[in-house]
This record gives sequence, C-alpha cells and structure tokens, in this order.
Amino acid sequence: MSQPTTKVTLADVARLAGVGVGTASRALSGSARVAPETRAKVLEVADRLHYVVSPDAASLASGRTGRVALVVPHLSRWFFGEVAEGIHAGLRGADLDLLLYPVGAVQERAEFFERLPARRKVDAVIVVAFQVLEAERRRLELMGVHIVAAGGQSAAYPYVRIDDYVAGRQAMDHLLFLGHRRIAMLEARDPDQPDLDPPRSDAYVEALRENGIEVDPELVVVGDWGGEQGAQGMSRLLSLRTPPTAVYAHSDEVALGAVRTIRRAGLDVPRDISVIGIDDHPLAALTDLTTVRQPAHEQGRRAAEMLIGLLRGDPGVDESVTLPTELVVRGSTAPPRG
Amino acid sequence: MSQPTTKVTLADVARLAGVGVGTASRALSGSARVAPETRAKVLEVADRLHYVVSPDAASLASGRTGRVALVVPHLSRWFFGEVAEGIHAGLRGADLDLLLYPVGAVQERAEFFERLPARRKVDAVIVVAFQVLEAERRRLELMGVHIVAAGGQSAAYPYVRIDDYVAGRQAMDHLLFLGHRRIAMLEARDPDQPDLDPPRSDAYVEALRENGIEVDPELVVVGDWGGEQGAQGMSRLLSLRTPPTAVYAHSDEVALGAVRTIRRAGLDVPRDISVIGIDDHPLAALTDLTTVRQPAHEQGRRAAEMLIGLLRGDPGVDESVTLPTELVVRGSTAPPRG
Repeated sequence: MSQPTTKVTLADVARLAGVGVGTASRALSGSARVAPETRAKVLEVADRLHYVVSPDAASLASGRTGRVALVVPHLSRWFFGEVAEGIHAGLRGADLDLLLYPVGAVQERAEFFERLPARRKVDAVIVVAFQVLEAERRRLELMGVHIVAAGGQSAAYPYVRIDDYVAGRQAMDHLLFLGHRRIAMLEARDPDQPDLDPPRSDAYVEALRENGIEVDPELVVVGDWGGEQGAQGMSRLLSLRTPPTAVYAHSDEVALGAVRTIRRAGLDVPRDISVIGIDDHPLAALTDLTTVRQPAHEQGRRAAEMLIGLLRGDPGVDESVTLPTELVVRGSTAPPRG
Repeated sequence: MSQPTTKVTLADVARLAGVGVGTASRALSGSARVAPETRAKVLEVADRLHYVVSPDAASLASGRTGRVALVVPHLSRWFFGEVAEGIHAGLRGADLDLLLYPVGAVQERAEFFERLPARRKVDAVIVVAFQVLEAERRRLELMGVHIVAAGGQSAAYPYVRIDDYVAGRQAMDHLLFLGHRRIAMLEARDPDQPDLDPPRSDAYVEALRENGIEVDPELVVVGDWGGEQGAQGMSRLLSLRTPPTAVYAHSDEVALGAVRTIRRAGLDVPRDISVIGIDDHPLAALTDLTTVRQPAHEQGRRAAEMLIGLLRGDPGVDESVTLPTELVVRGSTAPPRG
C-alpha cells in the first residue's frame, strides 16, 4: 500500500470513475441520490487513490453526518454494554446518533476500518477497549474523522481508561497484605495480541518481586476472559503438588470460574483459597467476590464528552484521562490458613 | 392529538414552514444540506400536520436510508447485549447499518417514537424486549417504517420471542416434580407496566393450582430484574414463620441474589432451599444455578432476518416466531429435606 497523499483532487476521482464532480462528491458524502453501482465505483477509485476529503470541503459539500460510530468487540459482556450505555449518556443533548459496529473478530475490525472512511458515514469513531493500528488511525485522521478510545489500555489517540497496572497492584497488594506468598495468577490475554504482556500481569510480577517472592511459572495460567477458562485454569492449579493459597484473576468472570472449581473440589473460599478479581461486575456483589472496581459507565460517558469537545474544536480538551480504581473487599479473601 | 391523515401534502408542509418544496423534502429526508433551524421548522410543521411521507415518494426523494434503529432498554444487561449481537449477526451481508438507541427510561422511549418518523433516519426499527404502544406502531407504519420485536413478550407486530408461560412452567414443574409444595416466587415486573400480570407469574399460579396447592400471597415477592432485589426479596421470605423449601425466580440475576441471602443466613443451596432461575445467563453455569435456558442470540438473529425479508417485500415471511426454551438442571435444586 502506498502512502496516503493529499495531492489527489475530487476531479481526479471523478474523472477516473467516469462521472461528474458533483456526482463524485455526492457519492463520497453518502447521498442516496447516487446509483449504488456509481457509488461503488467512486468509492473504489477514491480508496485506490487514497483520496483525502478536506474537512472543509466535506463540510461544504455535505455538512456533518451527525453520527458517531461505536466500535465494540463483545457487546454481550457486561463491561462493553456498560461502557456503551455511558457513551450514549455522554452524547445526550449533542444531537449525535450512534452507529453500532460490533466487531468481535479481528477480520471484522480490519474490514470496518478499511471501509469506513471512504463511505464517510460518521464524523467520529469511539472504540471500546481495543487498540487501533497506527495506519488505521492515520487514515481516519486524514479523512477528518475523529477517534477516541473508551476503556482502552494504551493509545496514540485521545482516550479514557483506567490504569491496569495500578488495578492489578491493588489486587496483588491486598493478597500480600493478608499474608499470602504462594499466589497464582489467572491471566487473560488479548487473543489478537497473545505476545503482549498485559499491564495486569506486570503488576503480578512486580508485586511479588518487591516482596522478595520468586515468580513460579507453574502458578501462572493463561486463558481468555471467560468464566469457563477461569474454571479450567483453576483445575490446573489444583493439580499442582503445592496449590496456591490465593488466586489473582484478571477479571471477575475468570475469578468466578475459579471459585466454582474450588467449591467443586470440596474446598472453601476463602478458608482454603482466597480469590480476587478485577471489574466489580454486578454479579461480584451477588457472589460476595472481593475485587477491584473500575468505573465502566463513567469511562464511556467521559469518552463521549471528550469527543464532543473535539468535534466542537474546543481548545482545552484533556485527551488522556485515567480514572481511578478501588479495592472492594468482600467475602472471597482472607489470610492464609495456619 | 388528532388522527393522522394522508391528505396533507408536502406542498402544505413547505408553505407553512415558509420554504420551498425541495427544501422541505430534503429536510424530511434528513439531508445535511438543510440548515438546522430550517429542518427543525419543517419537522415541527410536518409533525404538527401529521404529514405522512408516502413510502414511494420518500424512496423517490431520498431512497432507502440503509439504516435500522435498534431500540433497547438496558444494554449493560446480558440478555440485551446478547440479543443486540444476534441482530448484528442477522443483518450482516444486508448492508444495513444499526443506529443504537438505548432508552432506559419510559420518557426516553416516548421521545424516541415521537421524533423518529418525521426525521426519517431509518427504514426500520427493532425493539428489544419491550412493547410499543399501538399509536406509536401505527405512526411508524404510516411513515413506511417497519417494526419488529426481538425478545418481546407480546406484540401486534412481527416478533421473535420465547413463550414466557412455558418457560415459567418448565421451572415450576421441575420444582414440583422434585416434591416441593411450599414454593415461593421472586417476581420481576416491568416497572412501566406494574399492573400487568407477567406470563411467568401465570405459570406459577397455574402450576400450583393444577397440583392442588393454594397460592400463599406471603410467598410471592415483587421486585425488578436486579440481583439486589432478589437478595432483598429472599430476606423477606426467610423472615416468614414457615419459609419456602424452593424459590422460583423470574431471572437468573434475581435467583443469584436469593442464593446469596440464603448462604449468608448459614443455609445451604439446595439442601435447605432449592433455587431456580430463567435465562441461562453465562454466570448461571459458573455458579451452578439450575435454570431455564432461552436462546438470546438467536432471538436477535431471527428478528434481523425477519426484518430483511419484510424490507425486501418477500411474500412468505413468518411474522410470529416463538423459539423453544429448555430446563438446564444444575446444582441449585434438589428434593426437599425430610
């Protein structure tokens, strides 16, 4: 793929597509008065030429779309739904509509970023809890489309997030304070980036190190974010010659899976094994799970407010917001026995 | 409010709004080439006159919007997120975008239906698990906007749902088969329609009646769909002189709240009290909760497919689909003691 260039004009696109400039402009602005085949041809040419709509020209030709794309990997999971509700709440009053793009698979995500800019369907994109590739981000920016991350772990663009390292430390420090030294980790990795060490794992390693405890690789089990994975991981930990006295799980769902396995083995939480998660999922309260609370709704709301500021061109918009997390002690953690 | 009429013409709207017919048409079709104040005026007049866009005229003037509104009360709850993902999956390939409208409050819902048709932002509306008023439905239909219910309990328009009475009977029949006779119900009512007897409650009453058991009003506690409500309701049941030996909850979240209260009282589930829910929420498997499974994702997918058929004008579209539910026996139910 060649570099995007700003030298290509609308007239170039129109000529190559074999249409008039007005038609090309309408096709790019998503006007319904253009035949689908014509539009497809114009978009194909624009995309091929890396045609960049000047924000001014676009706004003259078609104004704002009044729409924001919400790109979210797993809508059915609590965190994502909660962030989405927060985003909706933050946009209220701004007369912006939310176009929903669930993109569970990496392939869907790539297609989304491939197709969106040329179609010019939205003024902005909010991504929930995943990273946008640098090339994708640059492309959106060139098309005059803003991008904001809600619940993102790190980003080269405006974001609202928590500090995952701090959240992990709050969980680990609690277990260490209770006196645990043989602590296992049920680690959830991003399946798209399996080689990336998550900050929640860094927190585990450094908390142990600071307390003079060597990391025992047997005590680290890698899975995904689901409860069933937590249950399986816990089975593996129980099969060790010396199982852990405490388990630090990267999410509440993973933690609840671990609790099930422990109970099925006839053991008691927290008497035999302590378990802590991260999230404060509503069911954590119901299942008496100790956890580290993150403000999901607020991450969405603040991201939406940030976006409105960016769209308005407000000068003092704070583009890197990190919200605090806090330990919530419930009934699943206690000092080790004996 | 007077009756909608088809006599009002676009010219009438334009004249009263003080604009040309072309501008009025563009304003109604949502074109961005109309100043916001002008559009507001045209919409206000159109709304006031109950101006009805003829589907043909609309499609000539502006074509299809290519968008579907997804109207959903509680996105952060599992069921709704799962249905939304199913809808997205069902629309894939149809080149339709989803506009997301979370409408938690009744007032938001009213506003949505008040504003949507005149704005003509979408070709169709999918509502998730709530009822649309007859007047609202008629208005949409007059504007040429299709409506489909996903996960709706009953409807005068096309729907995909489960049979809530049957689901309730599967839960109750299981408890009765195990030998329970003193069965409580944690009933979740729609806060918008608190006087409507839900079919899940009819199932309770009739199952008892058929087994010659009189309904004891003390054993029925009304709340909403949240886990905390289930926990509180269970406290009330434990305060009775003769608490129940089994609890039928209208949802898994309510059931999990009840389980927490029972455990906090030092009692065992299911040895002392059995608990059953409805849904098969992912955490039901993790918490070993017996439940009645409903296919959430499939309800969304099927509703989307139904909608595509209706938009295409396919003749044989089945507009009333009821999907089966099934009992999932886990560890929270057992015969009563003694």
